[in-house]
Amino acid sequence: MGFSEEQVIEVLASVFSSHDPRLILGIGDDAALVQGSHQQILTTDIAVAGVHFRTDWSSAYEIGRRIAAANIADVLSMNGRCDYLLVATTLTGNESIDWIRDLAQGIQDQASDAGAVIVGGDLARSQTLSIAITAIGNTAAPIRRSGAAVGDSIYLSSLTGWSAAGLEILSKGLSTSGAAAARALNEYRAPTLNMKIDFSAATSMSDVSDAVLIQGAQMAKASHVKFEIQCEAIESVPEFAELAALATEIGGNVHDWILQGGEDHALLATGVNLPGLLIGTVVEGSGITVMRNGQEIKMAPVSWSHF
Amino acid sequence: MGFSEEQVIEVLASVFSSHDPRLILGIGDDAALVQGSHQQILTTDIAVAGVHFRTDWSSAYEIGRRIAAANIADVLSMNGRCDYLLVATTLTGNESIDWIRDLAQGIQDQASDAGAVIVGGDLARSQTLSIAITAIGNTAAPIRRSGAAVGDSIYLSSLTGWSAAGLEILSKGLSTSGAAAARALNEYRAPTLNMKIDFSAATSMSDVSDAVLIQGAQMAKASHVKFEIQCEAIESVPEFAELAALATEIGGNVHDWILQGGEDHALLATGVNLPGLLIGTVVEGSGITVMRNGQEIKMAPVSWSHF
Repeated sequence: MGFSEEQVIEVLASVFSSHDPRLILGIGDDAALVQGSHQQILTTDIAVAGVHFRTDWSSAYEIGRRIAAANIADVLSMNGRCDYLLVATTLTGNESIDWIRDLAQGIQDQASDAGAVIVGGDLARSQTLSIAITAIGNTAAPIRRSGAAVGDSIYLSSLTGWSAAGLEILSKGLSTSGAAAARALNEYRAPTLNMKIDFSAATSMSDVSDAVLIQGAQMAKASHVKFEIQCEAIESVPEFAELAALATEIGGNVHDWILQGGEDHALLATGVNLPGLLIGTVVEGSGITVMRNGQEIKMAPVSWSHF
Repeated sequence: MGFSEEQVIEVLASVFSSHDPRLILGIGDDAALVQGSHQQILTTDIAVAGVHFRTDWSSAYEIGRRIAAANIADVLSMNGRCDYLLVATTLTGNESIDWIRDLAQGIQDQASDAGAVIVGGDLARSQTLSIAITAIGNTAAPIRRSGAAVGDSIYLSSLTGWSAAGLEILSKGLSTSGAAAARALNEYRAPTLNMKIDFSAATSMSDVSDAVLIQGAQMAKASHVKFEIQCEAIESVPEFAELAALATEIGGNVHDWILQGGEDHALLATGVNLPGLLIGTVVEGSGITVMRNGQEIKMAPVSWSHF
């Protein structure tokens, strides 16, 4: 082994140390003690090496940021603020102590950006590297998937597709240059959460961890309405041209990236006069369709299953 | 694969379904929504097949109970009550849907016994089966490891050593009969948490997940005192004779089981006139010693490290 358990715990305790006033008792006792809040958001995600991330595609720091982002996004998508994270990690023993420190720093920096404190964790040995994060947040006014109403518009907090573009570059082993490719790679490796968008007036909301068409279909089903996505609206988003040019350059499909790609962790919301990018309309019916010139476009069905 | 992801989620949602009034919004949205409390206890544990449990030694139901018990015990040891659990599982794909259902039922039953609700989870594929549980509890008066005072007595909520005895039976591949062996196997496979003991007046407390000598040493260090464990006191515990007879029968060391065995999840507490089993005294000094007739007994050093 390149390290002892004590060394790892010392590194984690040092990276995760906090004097946040919400934290009454941090790492070192049987459990952490924190200030609670009236209405809480709870969510957990587990990421496995080779499935959710690849250590040859992403640095430890990027992996840390990415996994924490996925968790925090679930809290944001309930119209919440993230308070606390707990991190349970399995290590193979082949990691270096520096790699572990960088992973912790990535989680810590993403948590800090969201105003969250890492209050505890666990460590175990396994043949497979994995990181399970639990996020605890609070909200005064939760927004569910089920509130979309006919006549609402559909919005994204930012243009999706960048992460899928980055994945395509990595999967094809392309060596790319240019700002668009760099952004795509970065969004795949360490997604940016839009912490500033104000979707508090949304009627329904979800984070786009799978794909706009999957998450939108779930929201439409929960709300007993139909989502119509308008291609023209997406194509009028300022940065669409940049992503489309990258798709042309590397032989990708920009509409697939935007609508069927995953892991952008943008927020998908419905409502009236919301900020963000307008991409469609809520109508009567069921399901989700993509429209151009008032006609439905067929997209290849998309799904993601672990088994 | 023996199952689809949808099947597993359906099974888990069915086993974990709850109408508990604290649960505002359960499984199905981006995150769960629950009633919070003023002062909260947060803890997470990850258990890995082959490290923390063996599927050939324990049934899926027992594994579920065992892992949930380990987590809940950390909440109890802070003088807390457990409210919510989140369960993140990695499956290899070789499990049967019945095995997964039994695992979930074990977690669910242990949670129910503690008054806790399972509010969320995640599922991923991995080469290694693992289960990460996060527990969220509340307490009006937390008890830390650091409050032991000279003159306090030392108590156990129940006699430790049964789990270590069960582990020894399984490790040696013994075929045993009799009530003591059956209890030992059961305590290893699905530990019983003593939910009724009232340690709310304790000055310090921890759960014995590693060993009395390890956890006691940590409490002594945090409290700047010395723990003296008295053999005579332990040997006068009514069920000591039964455990000692089992040790004789299978060639084990009963004192090692009680003081150096792990995973009993009994509570170790200090204070004055507490209920439970009196096993020693807090004195001036540092460290932890085992005494007989006023003389220190040397025990083999014990430690548990994953790496």
